[in-house]
Amino acid sequence: MGKSLAVSPLAPARFPDLPVIDGVTFATIAAGVRYQGRTDVMLAKLAPGSAVAGAFTRSATRAAPVLDCQAKIGGASDEGAAIVVNSGNANAFTGRGGTDAVEAITAAAAEACGVPQSRVFTSSTGVIGEPLPHERITAVLGDLHAKLDPAGIEAAARAIMTTDTFPKGASATVEIDGKTVSIAGIAKGSGMIAPDMATMLVYIFTDAVIATDALQHRLSTHTETTFNCITVDSDTSTSDALIMAATGASGVEVADNEAFDAALRDVMMDLAHQVVKDGEGAQKFVEVAVTGASNDDEAKVHAMAIANSPLIKTAIAGEDPNWGRVVMAIGKSGAPADRDRLSIRFGDIEVARDGWRSPDYSEEDAAAHMKGQNVVIGVDLGLGEGRCTVWTCDLTHGYIDINADYRS
Amino acid sequence: MGKSLAVSPLAPARFPDLPVIDGVTFATIAAGVRYQGRTDVMLAKLAPGSAVAGAFTRSATRAAPVLDCQAKIGGASDEGAAIVVNSGNANAFTGRGGTDAVEAITAAAAEACGVPQSRVFTSSTGVIGEPLPHERITAVLGDLHAKLDPAGIEAAARAIMTTDTFPKGASATVEIDGKTVSIAGIAKGSGMIAPDMATMLVYIFTDAVIATDALQHRLSTHTETTFNCITVDSDTSTSDALIMAATGASGVEVADNEAFDAALRDVMMDLAHQVVKDGEGAQKFVEVAVTGASNDDEAKVHAMAIANSPLIKTAIAGEDPNWGRVVMAIGKSGAPADRDRLSIRFGDIEVARDGWRSPDYSEEDAAAHMKGQNVVIGVDLGLGEGRCTVWTCDLTHGYIDINADYRS
Repeated sequence: MGKSLAVSPLAPARFPDLPVIDGVTFATIAAGVRYQGRTDVMLAKLAPGSAVAGAFTRSATRAAPVLDCQAKIGGASDEGAAIVVNSGNANAFTGRGGTDAVEAITAAAAEACGVPQSRVFTSSTGVIGEPLPHERITAVLGDLHAKLDPAGIEAAARAIMTTDTFPKGASATVEIDGKTVSIAGIAKGSGMIAPDMATMLVYIFTDAVIATDALQHRLSTHTETTFNCITVDSDTSTSDALIMAATGASGVEVADNEAFDAALRDVMMDLAHQVVKDGEGAQKFVEVAVTGASNDDEAKVHAMAIANSPLIKTAIAGEDPNWGRVVMAIGKSGAPADRDRLSIRFGDIEVARDGWRSPDYSEEDAAAHMKGQNVVIGVDLGLGEGRCTVWTCDLTHGYIDINADYRS
Repeated sequence: MGKSLAVSPLAPARFPDLPVIDGVTFATIAAGVRYQGRTDVMLAKLAPGSAVAGAFTRSATRAAPVLDCQAKIGGASDEGAAIVVNSGNANAFTGRGGTDAVEAITAAAAEACGVPQSRVFTSSTGVIGEPLPHERITAVLGDLHAKLDPAGIEAAARAIMTTDTFPKGASATVEIDGKTVSIAGIAKGSGMIAPDMATMLVYIFTDAVIATDALQHRLSTHTETTFNCITVDSDTSTSDALIMAATGASGVEVADNEAFDAALRDVMMDLAHQVVKDGEGAQKFVEVAVTGASNDDEAKVHAMAIANSPLIKTAIAGEDPNWGRVVMAIGKSGAPADRDRLSIRFGDIEVARDGWRSPDYSEEDAAAHMKGQNVVIGVDLGLGEGRCTVWTCDLTHGYIDINADYRS
């Protein structure tokens, strides 16, 4: 990015106070990978015994760091681990050179941190197709290790940003058997957001005690209803990665704890919503709630067809309650629908019922709802019990400004 | 449309001279369906014996006129027929009232033209979800019939426009056994363009002699490689309709004539390209040619993923040869790809080969290609013999200007 972007109007007032997670330390540095005058590499070190789980993009053109992480997830957890992330260059579609760069970075991080190379997870985000100048990263790993700080998570959230206009963090604490378990997570993501399996770059830490398999199961389950239910532009990244580490430092076993499970889902949902709220050019946060489908999968197909429709997203930008375009999107989605059973609402205002405009529909009321910063589109298909809710943003001039010259 | 749009920079210099097709006459009128101060209803009358074929949207929320046409296509052809089209209101998602409107219009047209109601085909295009004031159309059918003119096809092309910035026409003549057979067609379409089966509103006429079944077969075959291979915004209309009529007035049988078949495909391709060139906000005409896929269907999945990617379309608007986004789109498409066999070119410039940037790639040359009005993206997957070419336009501020307040 050559220019600086205005902060999203949907951004939270400030970065949240995140709890320190015992067993995790962070450091960041300005390595000049691509950007000048800002941090662009972060290192997180995990204490021995940490469990690590992950979820990654399903793209067929996955980046080299993603392939390396996927090969390592599920491995032994009785040694320390490390996470290295750079912004500015995605190390994607970089051929053999990309694989070599991952090898060099993970080897150098293993040596700097004193952990096995098989426990070093790396991510890269930024431009696709440019060789990653990995020597700029390997050169600073010693300095990074010397600066590791348990309170460095906000700085880490800033170092991984690309077109993001604000750093993203979320946390939860749960009382279990008189002890406190904490969860803290950070994310980056703004464009190329239509996750398929995981999304963007997300790192979540907890001091809970949980085995790797149980952690992976929870992470995968909640990914489906959080990160996999957001979309900014229907474009799926080559580099999406979500990594979660449980250090066990609290001494509290959470494998079967429902409160922990709910808290984890809340943190993931919060981060997912923050990514949408920083969607490129976003002025409005949009919830699309589909009910009455034959099953949940078909509900999601309809919800995503609505959330990805350029015509609907531009209508929202124009504050136009153009529900005819919602009908269009349902019609094109490919999932079953019966025109004459459709009901549509904007916020609490019923727009259409049984395949036609509601008799008491007020365009004025619907237009008032569209003027708000939070827009809700509700659709009931009248076919069954299937449901899905997804989140997106509007499509504005800002998206085109940002993407017509991202590389310049 | 409350405002008038600048003519697309991709528009042809002028409307083409279309041949008169013996057996077809046209009339248009300003009925005030929605727009003021312009024609908005067209009537075409077809001589007895005309064969009529059609292709229509696959949307699950098809409009009432589409459902009525689909029920009638394939019927007897030994009587006259008529086509009635209005712009300004799509009569879509209008419930029972929509069906009643079609019934009233087709009954009135049948009476005015002296043809069976089962041979009156009607289309409506414009805003979705508003009741169609059909009495404004039925009231003018007598006047329209009195004005029917064999040379009225250009006026018809103008009367069916909505957000179109230029009227669209194309023609061909073929010499067969010393006689001349002519084909003339018109189309409208600019947004909500991601045809599935047929597209937008298209009417093609010929004086050739051809049976209904043979005509339908040719029309359906060529639709797959022409109208079904264009996309403006990935949004599929509720109202797409393509109707072709063969009057037989030339006395030339063309059922097995290859020159006629090629000419028909050329006319269809020309009209399809004109729709893309009038894509909402379009500044550039983009060809996406995918080769080397395992089969043609998978080639089309990749081609459409590229052509519909907002990130690629905005990069093209910014004249940025951002081939990393092409890699991204191939990765997300869902069809098989092998990153390390991918080759990509912009125009004649090879950008990437075997999964990495080409050794002699010149960003300067690629940028020069992107500055032209016609952009070609070529992808070879290196997997097999499957291929598909599709056409689209760039995504510009103009698209958002037009669609953020289409209804105002």
